[in-house]
Amino acid sequence: MKLVDELLDGNRRALARAITVVENGTAEKKDLLAEIYPHTGNAYVIGITGSPGAGKSSLVDRLTEHIRKKHGLSVGIIAVDPTSPFSGGALLGDRIRMQDHVLDSGVFIRSMGTRGSLGGLSRATKEAIKVLDAGGMNIILVETVGVGQSELDIMNAADSIVVVLTPGAGDIIQTLKAGIMEIADIFAVNKADLDGADRTITEVGAMLDLDKERLWRPPVVRVVALNNYGLDDLFENILKHKEFFEGQGLLQSSRQLRLKSEVMDVVLDQLKEKIARELKDSGDLESVLERVVNRDIDPYQASDIILSKLMKL
Amino acid sequence: MKLVDELLDGNRRALARAITVVENGTAEKKDLLAEIYPHTGNAYVIGITGSPGAGKSSLVDRLTEHIRKKHGLSVGIIAVDPTSPFSGGALLGDRIRMQDHVLDSGVFIRSMGTRGSLGGLSRATKEAIKVLDAGGMNIILVETVGVGQSELDIMNAADSIVVVLTPGAGDIIQTLKAGIMEIADIFAVNKADLDGADRTITEVGAMLDLDKERLWRPPVVRVVALNNYGLDDLFENILKHKEFFEGQGLLQSSRQLRLKSEVMDVVLDQLKEKIARELKDSGDLESVLERVVNRDIDPYQASDIILSKLMKL
Repeated sequence: MKLVDELLDGNRRALARAITVVENGTAEKKDLLAEIYPHTGNAYVIGITGSPGAGKSSLVDRLTEHIRKKHGLSVGIIAVDPTSPFSGGALLGDRIRMQDHVLDSGVFIRSMGTRGSLGGLSRATKEAIKVLDAGGMNIILVETVGVGQSELDIMNAADSIVVVLTPGAGDIIQTLKAGIMEIADIFAVNKADLDGADRTITEVGAMLDLDKERLWRPPVVRVVALNNYGLDDLFENILKHKEFFEGQGLLQSSRQLRLKSEVMDVVLDQLKEKIARELKDSGDLESVLERVVNRDIDPYQASDIILSKLMKL
Repeated sequence: MKLVDELLDGNRRALARAITVVENGTAEKKDLLAEIYPHTGNAYVIGITGSPGAGKSSLVDRLTEHIRKKHGLSVGIIAVDPTSPFSGGALLGDRIRMQDHVLDSGVFIRSMGTRGSLGGLSRATKEAIKVLDAGGMNIILVETVGVGQSELDIMNAADSIVVVLTPGAGDIIQTLKAGIMEIADIFAVNKADLDGADRTITEVGAMLDLDKERLWRPPVVRVVALNNYGLDDLFENILKHKEFFEGQGLLQSSRQLRLKSEVMDVVLDQLKEKIARELKDSGDLESVLERVVNRDIDPYQASDIILSKLMKL
């Protein structure tokens, strides 16, 4: 495929087009993914999450600048907004700040929205990561807008997860409620020049003290993204996490687990399509569903009937 | 099944045990659900959601009291907390307030937590609703602790959805971000005696003005749950929504759609189990997954292989 050749050469327009192919789920998609797949697995994927207003976008912006200048690594950024039905381009207001990177060919930025299903967004994000990976990006930053189940699913694609907090107790509680405290590999307390930063750091530490089972204790890093303060420390801690996990063989094993669960997700999606297509055409599905609606059989009995029909196909 | 007979008689201990059966997914579960299913579809299910701190628990508490006293209807309450691994009993701190109802046999309260998978929680909640429905509860209130994707799934089981807001702009933004503004049938502005209540009501109204496509414009009701203010108005608006939807034939059709999607969820879960069981035993699944890990085939190619193996079984 010509698109794949261009993509593997690192052509930016090819990158953008390939992500669009993945998002739209067109016929080309399966071929594209099959062709690029052997060229993936080289990029390091960093997830950036935290409650809205924690300053994740500025952090991603400044961290990207830091990685480019100090480490010379290329950076792909995927900004995921499950509340937005739009994709591509500079859709989030704060993406405008990213214009600094427009002339830097070592940075590629893409926004992704739902386009319908939340499950689809998580899948599309994982596939966009593969595209950037095959396209030669060394570091891929995946940023989510908020904290919810879909964001948790998306963070599942990351090798290291940075949870961004801001001073103020509400932030920790909200983060706890959303279940993202547990997935953090590194905590970044952004706006650390504000009152209450020390307290937030103490509280996170106290919470981490409760969990003695962890192999890796997430470091808590002070950052003031807007002043470029602490970015060095943050990235060093991300690299430390990477080295620790690689050293323990955990990076490979967790990547393998993720790939396996990705396969199962694809299997289930394809089965869903198959059921809808084959059983709907025959009218069988509708008649079984009608029986459920009439309370003649219950959902489990209906499922047994549908499964036995499906297995006969 | 003896448990089912007792349940259909409205025995409270049988209700509690049946929900435990449903939650634990024991062997009895399928039989239980099949037996009670013909006795379901009579209760009216009201979902109560909104950001943490909006006072949903007190609202549910006082609304229950109101429904008992003014309408004499029995009320089943399911308090769902996706962040809690625990279920049953009075687990949420504020459930203690519910002790007022302990002596009222027309009220049944149950807390539910994740016990592992979030998807499982949404399923268990829908099944617990069926248990309460078969057990003769007239009204079922389903309350979620926070706002996230799992809460959205759970709200999908409700006939009418009340979104609880409190004065303060942050609440509306958070609710918007979580995608629950769109699912509201009724807005309850709780703590409406606080400063800013008028502004919140105006803002919700302005937001609703933007959406001209809606068949039903969600009313915005002022409530001060702690003072029992506005509960009458709130419940009347829920009943109005019920009547409007019934009148348009929409209640039946949306319940039917929900049942159908529930069947498909069961089908997919059972397929997932089947794949894991049959393919894992044969070692086929592992060998295909290994090829993905070795980047020999990609997840879509792996899925095709697994599906063709599955269809041969």
